[in-house]
Amino acid sequence: MTNQKIAKEIIQQLLIPSTATLTSVLRGLGVTRTFMHGGVAPLKKGMKMAGPAYTLRYIPAREDLDAPMDNLTDIQRIGIEQIGAGEVLVIDARGDTRAGTMGSILATRIFKRGAAGVVTDGAYRDSPGIAEIGMGAYAAAMNAHTNKTIHYPSEIQVPIACGEVAVFPGDIIVGDDEGVVVVPVRLAEEVAAAAAPMEEKERFIMEKIHAGASIIGMYPMDEKAEAEFDNWRGAAPTG
Amino acid sequence: MTNQKIAKEIIQQLLIPSTATLTSVLRGLGVTRTFMHGGVAPLKKGMKMAGPAYTLRYIPAREDLDAPMDNLTDIQRIGIEQIGAGEVLVIDARGDTRAGTMGSILATRIFKRGAAGVVTDGAYRDSPGIAEIGMGAYAAAMNAHTNKTIHYPSEIQVPIACGEVAVFPGDIIVGDDEGVVVVPVRLAEEVAAAAAPMEEKERFIMEKIHAGASIIGMYPMDEKAEAEFDNWRGAAPTG
Amino acid sequence: MTNQKIAKEIIQQLLIPSTATLTSVLRGLGVTRTFMHGGVAPLKKGMKMAGPAYTLRYIPAREDLDAPMDNLTDIQRIGIEQIGAGEVLVIDARGDTRAGTMGSILATRIFKRGAAGVVTDGAYRDSPGIAEIGMGAYAAAMNAHTNKTIHYPSEIQVPIACGEVAVFPGDIIVGDDEGVVVVPVRLAEEVAAAAAPMEEKERFIMEKIHAGASIIGMYPMDEKAEAEFDNWRGAAPTG
Amino acid sequence: MTNQKIAKEIIQQLLIPSTATLTSVLRGLGVTRTFMHGGVAPLKKGMKMAGPAYTLRYIPAREDLDAPMDNLTDIQRIGIEQIGAGEVLVIDARGDTRAGTMGSILATRIFKRGAAGVVTDGAYRDSPGIAEIGMGAYAAAMNAHTNKTIHYPSEIQVPIACGEVAVFPGDIIVGDDEGVVVVPVRLAEEVAAAAAPMEEKERFIMEKIHAGASIIGMYPMDEKAEAEFDNWRGAAPTG
Amino acid sequence: MTNQKIAKEIIQQLLIPSTATLTSVLRGLGVTRTFMHGGVAPLKKGMKMAGPAYTLRYIPAREDLDAPMDNLTDIQRIGIEQIGAGEVLVIDARGDTRAGTMGSILATRIFKRGAAGVVTDGAYRDSPGIAEIGMGAYAAAMNAHTNKTIHYPSEIQVPIACGEVAVFPGDIIVGDDEGVVVVPVRLAEEVAAAAAPMEEKERFIMEKIHAGASIIGMYPMDEKAEAEFDNWRGAAPTG
Amino acid sequence: MTNQKIAKEIIQQLLIPSTATLTSVLRGLGVTRTFMHGGVAPLKKGMKMAGPAYTLRYIPAREDLDAPMDNLTDIQRIGIEQIGAGEVLVIDARGDTRAGTMGSILATRIFKRGAAGVVTDGAYRDSPGIAEIGMGAYAAAMNAHTNKTIHYPSEIQVPIACGEVAVFPGDIIVGDDEGVVVVPVRLAEEVAAAAAPMEEKERFIMEKIHAGASIIGMYPMDEKAEAEFDNWRGAAPTG
Repeated sequence: MTNQKIAKEIIQQLLIPSTATLTSVLRGLGVTRTFMHGGVAPLKKGMKMAGPAYTLRYIPAREDLDAPMDNLTDIQRIGIEQIGAGEVLVIDARGDTRAGTMGSILATRIFKRGAAGVVTDGAYRDSPGIAEIGMGAYAAAMNAHTNKTIHYPSEIQVPIACGEVAVFPGDIIVGDDEGVVVVPVRLAEEVAAAAAPMEEKERFIMEKIHAGASIIGMYPMDEKAEAEFDNWRGAAPTG
Repeated sequence: MTNQKIAKEIIQQLLIPSTATLTSVLRGLGVTRTFMHGGVAPLKKGMKMAGPAYTLRYIPAREDLDAPMDNLTDIQRIGIEQIGAGEVLVIDARGDTRAGTMGSILATRIFKRGAAGVVTDGAYRDSPGIAEIGMGAYAAAMNAHTNKTIHYPSEIQVPIACGEVAVFPGDIIVGDDEGVVVVPVRLAEEVAAAAAPMEEKERFIMEKIHAGASIIGMYPMDEKAEAEFDNWRGAAPTG
Repeated sequence: MTNQKIAKEIIQQLLIPSTATLTSVLRGLGVTRTFMHGGVAPLKKGMKMAGPAYTLRYIPAREDLDAPMDNLTDIQRIGIEQIGAGEVLVIDARGDTRAGTMGSILATRIFKRGAAGVVTDGAYRDSPGIAEIGMGAYAAAMNAHTNKTIHYPSEIQVPIACGEVAVFPGDIIVGDDEGVVVVPVRLAEEVAAAAAPMEEKERFIMEKIHAGASIIGMYPMDEKAEAEFDNWRGAAPTG
Repeated sequence: MTNQKIAKEIIQQLLIPSTATLTSVLRGLGVTRTFMHGGVAPLKKGMKMAGPAYTLRYIPAREDLDAPMDNLTDIQRIGIEQIGAGEVLVIDARGDTRAGTMGSILATRIFKRGAAGVVTDGAYRDSPGIAEIGMGAYAAAMNAHTNKTIHYPSEIQVPIACGEVAVFPGDIIVGDDEGVVVVPVRLAEEVAAAAAPMEEKERFIMEKIHAGASIIGMYPMDEKAEAEFDNWRGAAPTG
Repeated sequence: MTNQKIAKEIIQQLLIPSTATLTSVLRGLGVTRTFMHGGVAPLKKGMKMAGPAYTLRYIPAREDLDAPMDNLTDIQRIGIEQIGAGEVLVIDARGDTRAGTMGSILATRIFKRGAAGVVTDGAYRDSPGIAEIGMGAYAAAMNAHTNKTIHYPSEIQVPIACGEVAVFPGDIIVGDDEGVVVVPVRLAEEVAAAAAPMEEKERFIMEKIHAGASIIGMYPMDEKAEAEFDNWRGAAPTG
Repeated sequence: MTNQKIAKEIIQQLLIPSTATLTSVLRGLGVTRTFMHGGVAPLKKGMKMAGPAYTLRYIPAREDLDAPMDNLTDIQRIGIEQIGAGEVLVIDARGDTRAGTMGSILATRIFKRGAAGVVTDGAYRDSPGIAEIGMGAYAAAMNAHTNKTIHYPSEIQVPIACGEVAVFPGDIIVGDDEGVVVVPVRLAEEVAAAAAPMEEKERFIMEKIHAGASIIGMYPMDEKAEAEFDNWRGAAPTG
């Protein structure tokens, strides 16, 4: 559905603004339910990632489904060997953290395939290891249990829920120290274009607030402030 | 996957035992996660239903997905006009009860198509009306809000989670006054065959307990009780 | 704020449609978060009520606030003796059901003052008694504990949260067997006017569905169905 | 600890007042956490029970503990054959409703042993059957799964948590249509003695409120009301 | 109500003890529900703050209330430009973390006005930035969404609930690495006075425990230990 | 029951593998519910501990149980002075984090007695201090309130639930940066023996994945990979 291609430059642009700016831009476009919650958080400080979603959906495990693990039939394994460079694996675990959804061997393989990150609204096992792999990593908990007793991999590359927001394959997943925002792929270019000026404006406002300005007339800006901003912008070196 | 056909007689047989007996039989076959919980309950007393699952999956709504309602493109509407006679619609609403998943007009249409019942781990709107339609109806709550602000219909006839158990299209869904059990279709014949003797045995045990027997030697039965049961069985009129 | 007066005829009109119809009308006006959830449900079957909200807000109890109960200083008691005929008491209990928010003596006094009902997102004590008083009564649980150990009455007639929706003093609270909807008072007349024709239309559609019609072309109605509806309407006796 | 004997007359007296009155009396004695919540509710309307607690505690199941069911070693079974006439079985299921804690055969045996009721903060299986046995029955949910996959019976006749309140063996468990209150056995006689006059007083107040009295001066009563009450009491036939 | 002035020295004194000591002192005065929970935690390590509460209350958003943001009518903005030097902004977000309650521009303005900190039982947006502003900052989650879709600012400087405890305007809010305690303003002087000796006593006990003492006779102290403490105190340099 | 002695070497061996490896080994032995969840997490990075469980169980507080704190009768205090060198205190707090279960003085005493760590599914008070004591420390939250208003110490050295898993006295509790796993004591030797080779195998696999190998044929290993592993093992220096 939203599986369209997106230029690399767009993704580069989306890496610059904060997730807070991106949700504001999206809200300006009328889309308000895009930031994952329900406990989804970065595994450590300093993470930053952006890339198209590759989705994986788990349903509850049931003993009659519990086939021996096999890389040719296990949907999770098939998916992992399909993830493309720059993509972000997003796992719908129904918010259930009673077992991991993946461990560090699989996460490392995903990293070696060039993925930009991994996101789950469940847990990882080997979380301390996954935190150090070198790509974005977000989860709702840590749990050393393997996924098989709680989760059954059901589908790949279908629309899913993660962190209580909708994610379609190809939607741009952006993560920073605050968390993860889903940028619908059809809006990605527009969002990328609008985010830079919004960040610039907020930098100006922040500078004024730091200098002691009241928010009255400044946030939001009145005409006088807008004029001052235009001035500042002309003067400011391009960030 | 488990979309195989199942004989009508099997379904008739599965209507007889209680869901408690069915989960016991399933446990005997090694399958323990089959009874829906998370609040899924009958809309009123006296419901009894069995039929193959027709599945519908919702993901969280997002404003950019909010197309005008249209029976030719809305997955929920398409699904409803595909449900076959005797089937049970099972809706994966991620346990989110902040809006209904369906109202009484759609539920009535499902009933007119010959369905055996409807199950959701979310809510219905017009719940009091749905309770009276004349088919099985199970939900986790009542909520008059239409589904569109919270739920987006994403897929039909795929494996889903409902009430924290896995449901595959074609699995046999059985409901009574206690709630809803999922009988994996590949096990349905075996379960149906084993349920009747188990119910008979429990009827015997209950009779003895009512007559003052201790559970020692009776539940589970020792050799002496088994012999007595064989006797009783010979004597008892076939229930 | 929204404390404006509302004509009795408007309230009479709002008593006729179901809460499901009212939320649909409100959604048509762009207001989607109006139906209480979080467990708020009728205490028994057959309740129906409508009236302006009289609001009471609890905050968590703290021992240094625990003054001896006194009808002249206890905000809850003052509020109860202020509730007007036809009003609905709505209590913000922060969804905390670890104690009642009111018992049957106070609820009976409220009824005697002519109130149309009582709503809480906490619990009542003496719930079985309150169910039988003769007015609408909605709560999230039953709990025999008095309110004082958990709740402290903090304000009356201010905007509150109840069942996870906003309620302003004077908003019209409508309850039926499904639950409670908040009709913003500024929209009440418009909602009342729009609800009757919507109910009529849904009655027509239901009649057709019962007669075997598909939802295609009927729900929503296409041109042909609209024409048929106009016809039916002319013929139908006014409900 | 609190395992002392209690006279049958005390229990008879505790059957008369509502659980709301009992929690009020207990609060007057400084004990405020006595009413079970967390979803514990009667299985059907019209239940009324009182009796000393016989306690059973479950811990989470673990496969290495899963011995074959055996009435001589299974703590649950041993407990059931020890419950005395008039006692109430109270089960600590940690509020976990993913499986039943007992089914109708065991509940019937408990009834045949003369027990006054059964209470769990988990679920029962065969709940519709248990509701009709003829004794008090309270639970937080219905779940047809047998207890073994989720719960492991760990101890009998030790202090437990049930519905988020403490229960000691021998504490008096009183249930009505609102739910279950725990009367600490050391306070039982005092509570029983204080409940009757409190109920009488509340009956008087309710009569006055029905007759149109304001709560001012009446609830709580001022001197004038107290005098009127003394009068009424003299005149009223003993309830 | 509790809006009385408090001397700066009292606040300076309250900055010294840990929140654990303060809750102990408060418990000694009979006040036991004062420490925020429900997930409220410091945004980073090393925070320490104390100051009178300036309160802000949110209710759920409703589309008909969604006025264009305006610093002259938006209660949140009005409040921010009223916060006084040394105060702590405390936001009642009903524990709802589906959107931020404030971002870094507003938080920076609050800091520039001289505030001692900000506390919410919801989330912040730009949380990583807020953590670095240089004042105390506590929240239950991070969420980049702006507040408007979930929260509506309803009142300022009224009693609120935050982290499941009551907060009155003017109550002294003290935060450290463990979290946030509310010191009722009427008790602040007494608490400040009692905290220092309690900390001294605990320092002594800790010294003894480190030296290998058993807790028997030491925690709590018996007569011998008290005598030893008096000695130590005389000898110890004033901390 | 499982109170058998365990050799120190076994515990030393269990300290080497990650909790993720241990849960995998346990799963291989058929035991799948062993990793604590429900929020139980290390108080800071870098913790590593293993030792036999010493268990303490809390039930909800009730005012009539609130005896003056006394080291000779308070079950918590008695337990603390019984904990043996190398043991891990595990506290069943029913997942209730509304108060601490212990503070830093008691935790320090436990450390001085030679304990290997402390675990609770509730909260600690003085958590920042407990994090720095020098032993393993795991909890579900921080809460400065003393335990007495919420928790009552009920039993020591009985089977308990902690983090939603069963813990028997003597079971080996292993903690690392991911969290806490319970190794049933009867399986401890077998688990310890199996963990080392599994870690070795996973190290080999990880090396291959880092070198660019696909998971196909490698995770799980096919015959060719097994042969390569045998080779590598011969060559590799013993870790």
